Amino acid sequence: MSIKLDLRKLESIKNDKEFQLLFEKGMKFAEEIERDDAIGFTDLPEEDRYVKQAKAVAERLPEGIDTLLVLGIGGSALGAKMVRDCFSEELSKKLIVLDNVDPYTIHNVAKSINPEKTVINVISKSGSTVEPISQFKFFYNLFEVELGREETLKRIVITTDISKGNLRKVAEELEILSLEVPENVGGRFSVLTPVGIFPLEYCGIDTELLLKGALKQKLSGKETAVTGAVLDYLFYKQGKNIKVLFIYSDRLYRFGEWYLQLFGESLGKRFDRNGKEVTVGATGVLAKGVTDQHSQVQLYREGPDDKLFAFFKVNKKIDVLIPESFSQFEGFSYLNGKTFSQLMDAECEGTMQALENTGRPLILYQIEEINLETMGGLIYLFELQTAVCGYLYNINPFDQPGVEEGKLIAKKLLGY
Amino acid sequence: MSIKLDLRKLESIKNDKEFQLLFEKGMKFAEEIERDDAIGFTDLPEEDRYVKQAKAVAERLPEGIDTLLVLGIGGSALGAKMVRDCFSEELSKKLIVLDNVDPYTIHNVAKSINPEKTVINVISKSGSTVEPISQFKFFYNLFEVELGREETLKRIVITTDISKGNLRKVAEELEILSLEVPENVGGRFSVLTPVGIFPLEYCGIDTELLLKGALKQKLSGKETAVTGAVLDYLFYKQGKNIKVLFIYSDRLYRFGEWYLQLFGESLGKRFDRNGKEVTVGATGVLAKGVTDQHSQVQLYREGPDDKLFAFFKVNKKIDVLIPESFSQFEGFSYLNGKTFSQLMDAECEGTMQALENTGRPLILYQIEEINLETMGGLIYLFELQTAVCGYLYNINPFDQPGVEEGKLIAKKLLGY
Repeated sequence: MSIKLDLRKLESIKNDKEFQLLFEKGMKFAEEIERDDAIGFTDLPEEDRYVKQAKAVAERLPEGIDTLLVLGIGGSALGAKMVRDCFSEELSKKLIVLDNVDPYTIHNVAKSINPEKTVINVISKSGSTVEPISQFKFFYNLFEVELGREETLKRIVITTDISKGNLRKVAEELEILSLEVPENVGGRFSVLTPVGIFPLEYCGIDTELLLKGALKQKLSGKETAVTGAVLDYLFYKQGKNIKVLFIYSDRLYRFGEWYLQLFGESLGKRFDRNGKEVTVGATGVLAKGVTDQHSQVQLYREGPDDKLFAFFKVNKKIDVLIPESFSQFEGFSYLNGKTFSQLMDAECEGTMQALENTGRPLILYQIEEINLETMGGLIYLFELQTAVCGYLYNINPFDQPGVEEGKLIAKKLLGY
Repeated sequence: MSIKLDLRKLESIKNDKEFQLLFEKGMKFAEEIERDDAIGFTDLPEEDRYVKQAKAVAERLPEGIDTLLVLGIGGSALGAKMVRDCFSEELSKKLIVLDNVDPYTIHNVAKSINPEKTVINVISKSGSTVEPISQFKFFYNLFEVELGREETLKRIVITTDISKGNLRKVAEELEILSLEVPENVGGRFSVLTPVGIFPLEYCGIDTELLLKGALKQKLSGKETAVTGAVLDYLFYKQGKNIKVLFIYSDRLYRFGEWYLQLFGESLGKRFDRNGKEVTVGATGVLAKGVTDQHSQVQLYREGPDDKLFAFFKVNKKIDVLIPESFSQFEGFSYLNGKTFSQLMDAECEGTMQALENTGRPLILYQIEEINLETMGGLIYLFELQTAVCGYLYNINPFDQPGVEEGKLIAKKLLGY
C-alpha cells in the first residue's frame, strides 16, 4: 500500500465496541456508496473515457500553445491546482488557474499571457457560476480584440453539463470545443472527470497514472478510508470541532486545500437526510511541516484540547546532505552527515510526540513516495472517507444548500 | 483612517456593560503596553535606525546582486513574505524566503539561484534555530564551492541577537555583515525590526512608508485595536473557539498567514501570568474571498455556530470592466457595465449578509486602499490588538513555552 494509516497512540481504539460497530457500519456504507449509480465519483478510477476525450480535444486545438488558462472556482479549480503544484516539473505548458475575481489578479494575468499561444478552458458544472462567466466574458473579449473571432473560438474549451445550462448553449451555438461534467459527480469530487483530467492531460500530466493510483486505492484501501471516517466522526462527537492537517511536504500543501473544500462542504451540514436539524461539521485547518511548528504548535499544545490531528509524512524523499560548514562553531556540528529528509522526519516525529505527550489525539498518514499514482490514491481515499463520514452522520455529503443565499444576495446587488 | 472597523450587526454590543468595562480595561492595557520598555514592538514605528542600518549594510554588499535569499522560519519569514507578495511589482530584486527544510524545495532553490548574484540573509533571533542553521550550512557550502570563501563571506548578512548566540559568534569571528534583533521584540512582532526591514529595503521596498503607516495607526488607531481585542476575548469566552479571517484580496492573503502566527502563538496559552491553569486560545482559520465562498461557506453557514468572522475588504481597487461579450446568451448580460471590483464587493456583501442572516457574529475591516502605509497600519493594529487581548486573558502574549518539547525530541532523534 502506498498510503498507510498509522493510528500511533490511538491504536487501541480499535478494541472499543463503539469503534467496531461504527467501522462495520462504515464498511457497509462504503460498499453502498461504491455500488450506487447515483454517486459517480467511485466509478471514475475505472473510467478511461475522459482521458481519451481530453486527448481528442487536445488534438483539435491549435499548435504552438504554451499556456492553458483555466477559468473556474472551488471544485473546478482546486483539483488541477493540487496536481499542478505537486508535479510542476512535469508540466509541458504553463497552467494558470484563475479562481478569483480580484481585478488586480485578472489585470496581471491578462498582461502575462499571449492570446495567440493560450487556450482558455472555462469550467462550470451548472454553466452559470458568476466567477468563470465574468472571467470568460473578459478573456474572450481580450482574445477577440487581438486575434479576431475565429481564432479566438478555436482557443476555447468549455467544460460543463452535457446538455443543460447557459455554457452548454454557448458551446453548441458557437461550435466551441466542449467536455462534459458527469451529472452524478459534484464539483468537489470532480478532479478525475474532465474538470481535472483535461487541463492536466493537456499540460503534460499522465492522468492515466492518477486513475491507476485511484483504482489501486479503491481495490485495497477501503479499510483505511473507513477507519479515517470513523475517527473523524468519533472525535467530532467528542467535542473536537477542529481537524488539523499537518502536512510535512511543500509539494502536498495544495492537496490540503483541495481536501479542506471536500471536507468542509461535504460534512458541514444543518439537516440530516430526514430533514431533522442536526448541525454537524468540524472545521479543517491546514498546517505545513516543519514551517508551522514555528507558527501554530504553541496553540496546538497549550491551547484548548479541541482538535484532531492528522499528520502527513512522505517516506521516500530526495537526498540532500547537510554539509559540514561551520562545524568549528557551537551548535552547528550535530547536523553533520544528516540529510534534510532526516531533519524533516525528526522534526515531524518530535512534534507528534510532543502533542501526544500532551494528550492530543493524533494519527499519521505515511505516504510511500510522491508520484502520480499516490496522488490518485490520496484523491480516492479522502473522497471515499468523506462520503462514508457523511453517511455516519446520516447527512447528505453531496449537496451544498448553504451557499445559495449569499449568491442570490450578490446577484441582487448586481441588479440581476 | 485608512483602516476602519465596521461592527455591522454587532454594533449594539458597544452598549453592553461588559463590553464597556472590558474596553476601558483594554484601553489602559494598550497604554501600559505602549509605555512598557520591556515591550519593544510599540516603539518601532518611531524608530528609523533600522532603515538606516539596512541601507548601510546594503551599500557594503557587492554590486550586481539580483536575488536575496532569506533563511528564516516563523516570525523570521512571515513578515517579509507578507510584504513581498503584496507589493511584488515594486521589488527591485528577487526575494526568496526559504522557510522549510523540505529537501525538494531546497534542491530547487539551489538550482534556481546564481551564487554570484545572490546575497544570503540568515535570520534567527536565538542564533540556534535548526532550520536556518541547517540551510545556512547548505548554502554556505554551495556558494563556497562556486565562489570561494572570500566572495561567499561578502554575500552573507546575519540577523540575530546583538551579543548572544551561536550565529553572533559566527558573524564576529568570520567578520560577516550583521544586523540585530532587539532583545525586547519577539519573532512574531519583529517585521519592523531588521528581520523584516533589511530584506524588504534591500529588495526595493520603501520601508519608511511601512513605519509611517504604523505610526499613523499607533497615534489614531488605539480604539480600533482595543475593540478588536475585546471582541476576540468576548466571543472566545462565549464558545467561539474558531476565528475566521475572510480576506477579499489576493494581495493581502499572506497578511492572513502572518496574523495567524501572531494570533496563535500569542494567545494559545495554558497558564496565566500567575501560573494558574487557564487554557485559552481560539484557532485562526484563513479564507480567501471570493474563492473560498465555493469551498468553506457551506460549513460556515450550516455547520456549528463556533466561529467569529472577521472580513477584510479593500475599498479602492483598480477598475477592470467586464465587457459585453456573449450578451445574446441567457445569464451573461447582467454583468455588462460592471467592474470586477463591483462584482467582488457584491459577493463580499452577499456572503456577509448570508452569514448574518444565519446569526453568525461578524465584523468587517474596511481598508481604504492597499499601499505600504496601510500595510504598516495593519501590522501595528493587529500587533497591539493581539497584545491587548493577551492582557485581557491575563496571559503573557509574548512567550511560547509550548514549542520547546518538540524541538528537544527532534534534536535527540538527530543525536544532539
